[in-house]
Amino acid sequence: MTSGGYRGKILKVNLTDRTINVETPDENFYRLYYGGRALIAHYLLKEMKPGADPLGPDNVLVFATGPLTGGPFAGSGRNSVGARSPLTGAYGDGEAGGYWGAELKRAGYDAIVIHGQAAEPVYLWIKDDQVQIREASHLWGKKTADVEEAIKNELDEKGVRITQCGLAGENLVRYACVVNDLTHFAGRSGMGAVMGSKRLRAIAVRGTEPVPMADAAAVRELGRWLSQNVQDLAGGMRDLGTTGTVMSLNISGGLPTHNFRDGHFAGAEKITGETMRDTILKDRDTCFACPIFCKRVVETDEPYRVDPIYGGPEYETLAALGSLCGVDDLGAVCKAAELCNAYGLDTISTGVSIAFAMECFEAGLLEAKDTEGKSLHFGNSQALVELVEQITRQEGLGALLARGVKAAAEDIGPEAIALAMHVKGQEIPMHEPRLKHGLGLGYAVSPTGADHCHNLHDTAYTKAGGALKDIHPLGILEPIPADDLSLDKVRLYKQVTNWRTFSNCSVQCYFVPWKPHQTLALIQGMTGWNASLLELVQVGERAVNLTRCFNLREGFTAADDYLPERFCEAFTSGPLEGVAIDREALENARIAFYRMSGWDDDGVPSREKLYDLGLGWLAEDMAN
Amino acid sequence: MTSGGYRGKILKVNLTDRTINVETPDENFYRLYYGGRALIAHYLLKEMKPGADPLGPDNVLVFATGPLTGGPFAGSGRNSVGARSPLTGAYGDGEAGGYWGAELKRAGYDAIVIHGQAAEPVYLWIKDDQVQIREASHLWGKKTADVEEAIKNELDEKGVRITQCGLAGENLVRYACVVNDLTHFAGRSGMGAVMGSKRLRAIAVRGTEPVPMADAAAVRELGRWLSQNVQDLAGGMRDLGTTGTVMSLNISGGLPTHNFRDGHFAGAEKITGETMRDTILKDRDTCFACPIFCKRVVETDEPYRVDPIYGGPEYETLAALGSLCGVDDLGAVCKAAELCNAYGLDTISTGVSIAFAMECFEAGLLEAKDTEGKSLHFGNSQALVELVEQITRQEGLGALLARGVKAAAEDIGPEAIALAMHVKGQEIPMHEPRLKHGLGLGYAVSPTGADHCHNLHDTAYTKAGGALKDIHPLGILEPIPADDLSLDKVRLYKQVTNWRTFSNCSVQCYFVPWKPHQTLALIQGMTGWNASLLELVQVGERAVNLTRCFNLREGFTAADDYLPERFCEAFTSGPLEGVAIDREALENARIAFYRMSGWDDDGVPSREKLYDLGLGWLAEDMAN
Repeated sequence: MTSGGYRGKILKVNLTDRTINVETPDENFYRLYYGGRALIAHYLLKEMKPGADPLGPDNVLVFATGPLTGGPFAGSGRNSVGARSPLTGAYGDGEAGGYWGAELKRAGYDAIVIHGQAAEPVYLWIKDDQVQIREASHLWGKKTADVEEAIKNELDEKGVRITQCGLAGENLVRYACVVNDLTHFAGRSGMGAVMGSKRLRAIAVRGTEPVPMADAAAVRELGRWLSQNVQDLAGGMRDLGTTGTVMSLNISGGLPTHNFRDGHFAGAEKITGETMRDTILKDRDTCFACPIFCKRVVETDEPYRVDPIYGGPEYETLAALGSLCGVDDLGAVCKAAELCNAYGLDTISTGVSIAFAMECFEAGLLEAKDTEGKSLHFGNSQALVELVEQITRQEGLGALLARGVKAAAEDIGPEAIALAMHVKGQEIPMHEPRLKHGLGLGYAVSPTGADHCHNLHDTAYTKAGGALKDIHPLGILEPIPADDLSLDKVRLYKQVTNWRTFSNCSVQCYFVPWKPHQTLALIQGMTGWNASLLELVQVGERAVNLTRCFNLREGFTAADDYLPERFCEAFTSGPLEGVAIDREALENARIAFYRMSGWDDDGVPSREKLYDLGLGWLAEDMAN
Repeated sequence: MTSGGYRGKILKVNLTDRTINVETPDENFYRLYYGGRALIAHYLLKEMKPGADPLGPDNVLVFATGPLTGGPFAGSGRNSVGARSPLTGAYGDGEAGGYWGAELKRAGYDAIVIHGQAAEPVYLWIKDDQVQIREASHLWGKKTADVEEAIKNELDEKGVRITQCGLAGENLVRYACVVNDLTHFAGRSGMGAVMGSKRLRAIAVRGTEPVPMADAAAVRELGRWLSQNVQDLAGGMRDLGTTGTVMSLNISGGLPTHNFRDGHFAGAEKITGETMRDTILKDRDTCFACPIFCKRVVETDEPYRVDPIYGGPEYETLAALGSLCGVDDLGAVCKAAELCNAYGLDTISTGVSIAFAMECFEAGLLEAKDTEGKSLHFGNSQALVELVEQITRQEGLGALLARGVKAAAEDIGPEAIALAMHVKGQEIPMHEPRLKHGLGLGYAVSPTGADHCHNLHDTAYTKAGGALKDIHPLGILEPIPADDLSLDKVRLYKQVTNWRTFSNCSVQCYFVPWKPHQTLALIQGMTGWNASLLELVQVGERAVNLTRCFNLREGFTAADDYLPERFCEAFTSGPLEGVAIDREALENARIAFYRMSGWDDDGVPSREKLYDLGLGWLAEDMAN
């Protein structure tokens, strides 16, 4: 094994026959796949039967860490959860912060690969090399905090960390999330539903072995440097978390509003991070080893009583459940968010689904008979909160919306399809492509469907200096305007996406202000490898190609790399009035991205590209 | 400008109208093109008229340094010389060690770009910002040592460094080289003939300003580390230089012998580096700031009196003028080498041309009437020495051979063509592709024709450990057998070639045992840039694509990426008896290399690949 960074063990659990095994891959395996997305996609391609039902026993569910997980520095507490997505049918994963990932690593595992389906509800209990599948029928149907408490009580062990799927996952809501430590969420792609389908309510972990480090002094020094400079580097993140974005996006005209019909929200000021800070913010929270404290904890009283045990909304949640639904009642937004957290619902997909229903209602595509008499106008805060309950329980209109906007629109009828804001079935996150055109390309081609990890590609790199200088080592020297979709933008997109996808493989937090060379130094310090930025970017590109090939195998085509038409229609008001994405420019950029990636015009990676990424086995599989 | 590494000035000289200008490119120019090959190819594409006669006034001749040139550490004394090659008609360049490159940098220039043609012989005299074009008729026709002495005397300035073309360059021998400080040679591609055609006999330089360094302490520390460990790191190079290779290649069956007909030479022991060391070696020499001392200085007496002022043969020379011609008389080999040096002839092309003539003679394709009665059998050491004189003066058979084996074979007739060992018109260097099959691919696709800088790709990477571990940062983890031409080998070839081509751009010595991360640290220390290995490899790939596009513009096609048939014929004796390169495997590898490079099956880079390399301007030029 490696001299550090990894434990060298992959825990394999089959819930059907209740077998538990440990695999010990060699060092080259880790150096090719690192962790997170690349490692998950590798296991899905190798171990999931093509065409497996995402909610059936043949789906393979992977909890993965990366080489940085558990290290003594900011951004190392995360883990990734991946499987074939029940929301999209494509490759799916989500990442969560907190402490669970680091705990798994300390228990001695780099990842858990789960096959099969339990006959009755179970949870997994991992204490170092002791692994048990335990009955969980008594936990079924409970809120996450109750499950957390119950498991901790029955294990009678200090420092247990728990990840779970929530009630939404049990009920197979297609965008049910996975919840770590109650307040950290692997939100996207419906991984909670996959857990629910396997009747795996939770995984409790306790690890007692520190993660080995090849060069502990170098790693600790970087960690110390960040801690000592955290106010300068990330003081804004501590003050407002991501919620500071509400105001700035509203000013620039890119705050998703009224189901993406608008980019400017009249009630924005009532739901900003600043307002939240000055009114209901009770505390700030953070993740393993992180001095930034970007997480919010809110508490409200009547009419919407919000329990601080579930944390509080980040930017995506404020916009999805707020401006997107036209709701400017911060208490209602926080209550809806709290329920999403307590039930294990992805707040983005939940918000988009509700906003979709509201627009359908306003357009007459849903009527009172569909809504149990509710008036679903934009801005109806009470309906917002009620729908979160209904979606979770698959009741009434909630049963329709629990399948995601793509499936719901297909049910409602042709006119609804234009209002369904998704790519590949995954709901659009709270970043507006008409503000940052490269993001439109990113949404379209992302393997997981629309994904907010494609944010930041544009506006940060329109000026020389700061953020642009940080990506000079990726070979990008010149600023490129945010509304550009030229080949230079495609290049920027590709390079930055490979780099960000590497973060999905090292399972590193995007919010920690490590520069690329510092990330590299952390990788080197943890593993002892003579790694380079070239190697890291190639790992990212490897993950991009692994997930692409998985999707091709599962029947996806270039036609699925499609951005909703709404983004090609101009805003009729607000700071971006008149601005739209040019469809032809976008389609040209998409083809250029394929070609630049070594893919053909149908988006299929060439045999040579796969070999170039060290994926000869996949090239051979794809040829057969 | 940058905070270090560069001077920010390009000296532009037009010899036709005797104008002298200085260009001051911006920092991004340097960060895209670095120096050497990429910078030269950029100027050729931008400033040379398509179809320009390589020996006419429209050819553009560039002397280029790189970001490391002049730094206080081993490998920093070099410079590159490039132009359209009169030997191949393709992109041409050669690199030389010594002191001249560092001196040019200290004079304040990163490169000299020369246009036009002087009416009478001239030389250039550069003393910091004073630049003169001086008459050189009195130097014309002289040996290099006489020119060196004459210029030094007339300039009356200490520390002048001189590069010159020699008599062979004056006489337009197509493979005339450029000579630095008498004993350092930019050997390949006929750059001496380009100097000669411009009637530019020499460039004398004196610079008094140290090269700026962004982080002098870090750079000096690396230089010190190498000096302190030079015995461990490069003791063998000091002991034998490159000449130690003669014996090891002969043992493995890959010592080019009898015009590549054989790979094993009965007389090898008489011309090994060990024999040379134990008999005629007078001294060891080195380059600017280099503690390695890999250069040989030999002195012999009758029958072949060799003047130590011209140094002594390295491996390429021993093999080209020795085993390749079947000559095992070390004195004769050293004499032929001394003449090549004194006249400015590339020893590789000279040796291959003479070996070609010998095989033609043995095959009856050349007869006594063609050779002025000489018996040109392999092993005729006297004929070897005489032919060097004749080639230089374009006399007798020498006039034919001075055009290179491709042109000579076309003159002699169809049967001679199979005996002409070249790619694109450039003679094959002293490395046998049947020993290292990836080298066959390298020869075939190299922009400059067969090029010994493609050596080492294979045998070093067939085992885990050492050399293989060094290229882990380039993304290569697994050893690949030397006789393999699979897609994995193509990948290895591409990655290593991009890295080595970066050395052609940083104008760094291949022989200094810097590992990739140390090279990167030197680049960072000199320039102050946040450069990465990704950036460096991309600079190399940029140069590969610039030179490819130049060649396409000048009429080259995929058909020119052709390895001589002889390498696909099995050795009939020696350790590699029965071994040949499989033509079909080679052709498959060639196409795979194109595709892996983002080129079409005709070897044309895609528009998207050029944009991906930041070469949008070239994509637009190629489209027009």
